[in-house]
Amino acid sequence: VCICVIGGGSWGTGVVTLLGAAGAARIQWHCRNSEQALAINRDKRNPEHFPEHELPDQVYATDDLSEALDSCSIVYIVVPAGGVRELFESHPGAWEFWQDTQLASGATPIICNCSKGLLVDPTERTDDWLGSALPRATLVHLSGPNLAAEIVAGEPAAAVAASNTEAAAKSVQAQLASDRFRVYTGDDLIGVEVAGFYKNLIAIAAGMAHGLGLGNNARAVLITRGLAEMGRLVAHFGGKPATLSGLAGVGDLIVTCSSPLSRNFQVGQRRARGQSLAEIESEMSETAEGVNTSRALWQLPHVVALELPIAQQVYRILHENLDPKEAITQLMLRPAKAE
Amino acid sequence: VCICVIGGGSWGTGVVTLLGAAGAARIQWHCRNSEQALAINRDKRNPEHFPEHELPDQVYATDDLSEALDSCSIVYIVVPAGGVRELFESHPGAWEFWQDTQLASGATPIICNCSKGLLVDPTERTDDWLGSALPRATLVHLSGPNLAAEIVAGEPAAAVAASNTEAAAKSVQAQLASDRFRVYTGDDLIGVEVAGFYKNLIAIAAGMAHGLGLGNNARAVLITRGLAEMGRLVAHFGGKPATLSGLAGVGDLIVTCSSPLSRNFQVGQRRARGQSLAEIESEMSETAEGVNTSRALWQLPHVVALELPIAQQVYRILHENLDPKEAITQLMLRPAKAE
Repeated sequence: VCICVIGGGSWGTGVVTLLGAAGAARIQWHCRNSEQALAINRDKRNPEHFPEHELPDQVYATDDLSEALDSCSIVYIVVPAGGVRELFESHPGAWEFWQDTQLASGATPIICNCSKGLLVDPTERTDDWLGSALPRATLVHLSGPNLAAEIVAGEPAAAVAASNTEAAAKSVQAQLASDRFRVYTGDDLIGVEVAGFYKNLIAIAAGMAHGLGLGNNARAVLITRGLAEMGRLVAHFGGKPATLSGLAGVGDLIVTCSSPLSRNFQVGQRRARGQSLAEIESEMSETAEGVNTSRALWQLPHVVALELPIAQQVYRILHENLDPKEAITQLMLRPAKAE
Repeated sequence: VCICVIGGGSWGTGVVTLLGAAGAARIQWHCRNSEQALAINRDKRNPEHFPEHELPDQVYATDDLSEALDSCSIVYIVVPAGGVRELFESHPGAWEFWQDTQLASGATPIICNCSKGLLVDPTERTDDWLGSALPRATLVHLSGPNLAAEIVAGEPAAAVAASNTEAAAKSVQAQLASDRFRVYTGDDLIGVEVAGFYKNLIAIAAGMAHGLGLGNNARAVLITRGLAEMGRLVAHFGGKPATLSGLAGVGDLIVTCSSPLSRNFQVGQRRARGQSLAEIESEMSETAEGVNTSRALWQLPHVVALELPIAQQVYRILHENLDPKEAITQLMLRPAKAE
């Protein structure tokens, strides 16, 4: 079976590695950059991410989208949320052709969305947008505590593959699961997607707390209150707050809020130490999704009316230059009531 | 108002510090050791825990239980679970007298249980036992992400005070809350207690994973699956699994499973590095509650029939000398199904 992975970043490298470990026959990996694709095919290494890591033999990289999609019934989208629309709008014919040929051959075209951000200008949830761009494909959303560096290093981890169609979630599970990566299926596509982008905002706040010298107790309080905010947002969009007790919720939140490897955590930490957002962004090589999400969130329908104090303070600190110390202290001092 | 705190350990020192910061008029602190009590009154420092930390002026330490209880309507029990029964059985008259005089004066005698373990021989939940020992007192259980070292250092934190009687929870909230410590009230006494002792088992497992060199992804998976186990146990005892989304559940779990300051985490880490339980215990100055809890748990009614794989492996590693590497690997490799 051919599998298509789109996106040559760090998490794309992680997904390719997992598919290889799980025994994929052939992985067609789309990278925007043709030199990167050439180097991957020549060296079996991604020159831009984890170049010390040898990629699975089954990898074939290409900058040609049609070639990458060819004969694959499942396509993993692993580009930053900001690149999702362009990926489709620059090659509408290739996607249309893919969807049609899969259906004509009797297969179900499946999009496994691995992104953890929001589309901007206009703001939209990635699954909503993908659903309208490819109305006859079935969506699966993959999320969990999956730091790419650890995945690439072969350390064990686990994730959730959620879909409204159980068979599609099981197909992704079958492709990805191995003795180093457990994949649970789930039916709450909305909850898994919202958790995936919202946790980045909490991670920025946790990084700020850390940068301000606050300890583990304070971080645990932020994460716990962040989980409550996340639950309100999931419910708002019609997802299930109970999903947040699982790997895509608590699991991913813990890892993103605890690890200096997390880009979003780093953004918060640097901002707390006095750098401006512009300075931080100019120094980071890959997108920290939380920065865009913190701005885009408020454009989603009716979100401004929700009680999301942490996300609100993160927005003000990043985009309105509010002092992190003052803002985080305000958060810690909110009046306590019934939990 | 006089407040009584029982227990001169590290968390007793933390509770005393919080009560002082919140403006207590007088804190009567019972320490078993008379020399410790003398030193505290003389130096305003606890010679055994955080001796560099100056205690609040309002502290009066004593090894006389009746003196400590005198005129206090709220008593904080901050001894290791293993010491709770003895505390009552060695002075039944003092407790009886306290309960009676409080009631006679028109006050509600309140026991705020801060312990996070199980009674052993026979196994019993501390709140169950306290409820039968002092049937006319009202129970509150305090729990949350509260590493004592950070609390004593003045860092911000938060906790839940849970009770079947809202007024009692609010009394504890009023005594403890300050600009550095937020106290939420809750009504799920059982959920808060179960979370408090069960998280120590998950922390031992997390310490083992860390000691085996596993990374942040694996730890997040363990914590998340541990939360699911905890939910089954809470439901079994008639508590509310939703409590676990809060500070006493996720919050405390995160901090205990992430910090080398946690004694239970340390036990797991050392066991994974090859020390036996006997060696570890001989080197630690204070009780790691999880060690006793991991043994006692299975004596609670009907618990053996529950699906608690992490707690089970921790038991086997600590008490049956199972190899940590094999056991933790088995946990990570359990077949994945719907989450």
